[in-house]
Amino acid sequence: MEQVSMEATNPNPSSMSGVAAASAAELLCCANARALLDSVDAFLFDCDGVIWKGDKLIDGVPQTLDMLRSKGKKLVFVTNNSTKSRIQYANKFQSLGLSVNQDEIFSSSFAAAMYLKVNQFPPHKKEDAEKRAQWKSNCLFEHDKYVGAVVVGLDPDINYYKLQYATLCIRENPGCLFIATNRDSVGHMTDLQEWPGAGCMVAAVCGSTEQEPIVVGKPSTFMMDFLLQKFNVSTSRMCMVGDRLDTDILFGQNAGCKTLLVLSGVTTQSTLDDPSNSIKPDYYTNKVSDILSLLGE
Amino acid sequence: MEQVSMEATNPNPSSMSGVAAASAAELLCCANARALLDSVDAFLFDCDGVIWKGDKLIDGVPQTLDMLRSKGKKLVFVTNNSTKSRIQYANKFQSLGLSVNQDEIFSSSFAAAMYLKVNQFPPHKKEDAEKRAQWKSNCLFEHDKYVGAVVVGLDPDINYYKLQYATLCIRENPGCLFIATNRDSVGHMTDLQEWPGAGCMVAAVCGSTEQEPIVVGKPSTFMMDFLLQKFNVSTSRMCMVGDRLDTDILFGQNAGCKTLLVLSGVTTQSTLDDPSNSIKPDYYTNKVSDILSLLGE
Repeated sequence: MEQVSMEATNPNPSSMSGVAAASAAELLCCANARALLDSVDAFLFDCDGVIWKGDKLIDGVPQTLDMLRSKGKKLVFVTNNSTKSRIQYANKFQSLGLSVNQDEIFSSSFAAAMYLKVNQFPPHKKEDAEKRAQWKSNCLFEHDKYVGAVVVGLDPDINYYKLQYATLCIRENPGCLFIATNRDSVGHMTDLQEWPGAGCMVAAVCGSTEQEPIVVGKPSTFMMDFLLQKFNVSTSRMCMVGDRLDTDILFGQNAGCKTLLVLSGVTTQSTLDDPSNSIKPDYYTNKVSDILSLLGE
Repeated sequence: MEQVSMEATNPNPSSMSGVAAASAAELLCCANARALLDSVDAFLFDCDGVIWKGDKLIDGVPQTLDMLRSKGKKLVFVTNNSTKSRIQYANKFQSLGLSVNQDEIFSSSFAAAMYLKVNQFPPHKKEDAEKRAQWKSNCLFEHDKYVGAVVVGLDPDINYYKLQYATLCIRENPGCLFIATNRDSVGHMTDLQEWPGAGCMVAAVCGSTEQEPIVVGKPSTFMMDFLLQKFNVSTSRMCMVGDRLDTDILFGQNAGCKTLLVLSGVTTQSTLDDPSNSIKPDYYTNKVSDILSLLGE
């Protein structure tokens, strides 16, 4: 959780909810994989559960990305993970043997920074990981009354001090924004299992403030404007590839992209097929490298 | 957050949602205060914001309780605060100069214990306040697969270790119960201000598990069965006195009690009067001791 100081007045938060399409998902096969490749100029990839799990690359990813680049496709990485900057992400790709430029990376931390920038917040930041809060009589927990935005993202250092600080700013500072990088319930923060995601920290602050956040990561399409500034591709010629229905696939649908769900992350075939699921991707397959094998490349 | 081990199969969680009445609240005055006193045999008091704020007694409380006892009224204390046992609560009353027996105290921690007891859970408990979680490659975060219930209450030691432990138990242990002591968003944990309440921790676990808890504290009337076992008073001759609409007043209404809102805690007159508020107490007043002054005692 970060609190951002400002002296400007607050902007009007825009609504970013999405509408899900509900037609059936097609299993990726030789024919539709070829058609997909022909109809798309840019592939947007989620990272956790698609490119890697924790610090382990998913099988066949480097070869698949190489093949797509060799066919002139643009590659973009759109991640809700907010724990790294663009440079740190580029370094992570590098350490896994993948050559990705930082301007091909659109993370929810970047989205939050851009949201604050376009709303003219100065770049102040507080860091409270080691601070502790105690209930003491006659002792007031003081907070900075000029904090104008609280950004909540994935935070393994969540504690009661931060929760009280965020709660006071949002409840008591006039016009203070409550911004969520994303609301993913869980994610593959390590290779062997899932862990609570930013949705956990965001929900905690919703629970204490009884307010709902502005979400800047997927499924919000806020990041798309910045992506379009960089890449001269119409969204109808983009394909969003992800492992989460309620973030990746919904983001792709909200933005007007084609969508491909991979089952290498948090979503299982039974979740996809469940009658309660209304978010259906255009295509689904087990893992990214199926594109490579289906095309016989 | 506590995880409770069990080997028995899980019981069927009961639904405990309430329906709010919406008639207008009457300001307490001499006439209706007298009528209220005559029609009631037991007063049920919330504690934080009603009897005390943090460690400070609210003005006039001892004299009011003395007067009510002198008229033969039964006094019961029904609190959602889960950080203390009944004995610890009795000691807190004692330290503030109030003579209250532990069997007059019904806390949400007691409710959670009773919920587990009637559902035949053995009394095991884990304590993880000082433990830490780290995202390490090849390292599995292990959890006890026999944990059959996770109880979430107010926890100033909330951390990512506990959140991951609770999340794994609820998501992966077949039939594991998710029990919330209560969902109060904030409370007067100290005299000078409000702090995030159990609703914050409960929401965090809802956020990571995408599940809703069984709530045993107010506004659930689960505690009322135990209260009725102890006191031979019909609920229609009880008055619930509290400072929260969505817990205290709703609890009173759900149980068929009369209800009195005091404005000495988290609820303001404007919140009460707001058109969006559908929970109207029978009566409201500034503080508990108004009963005393209105009756001219």
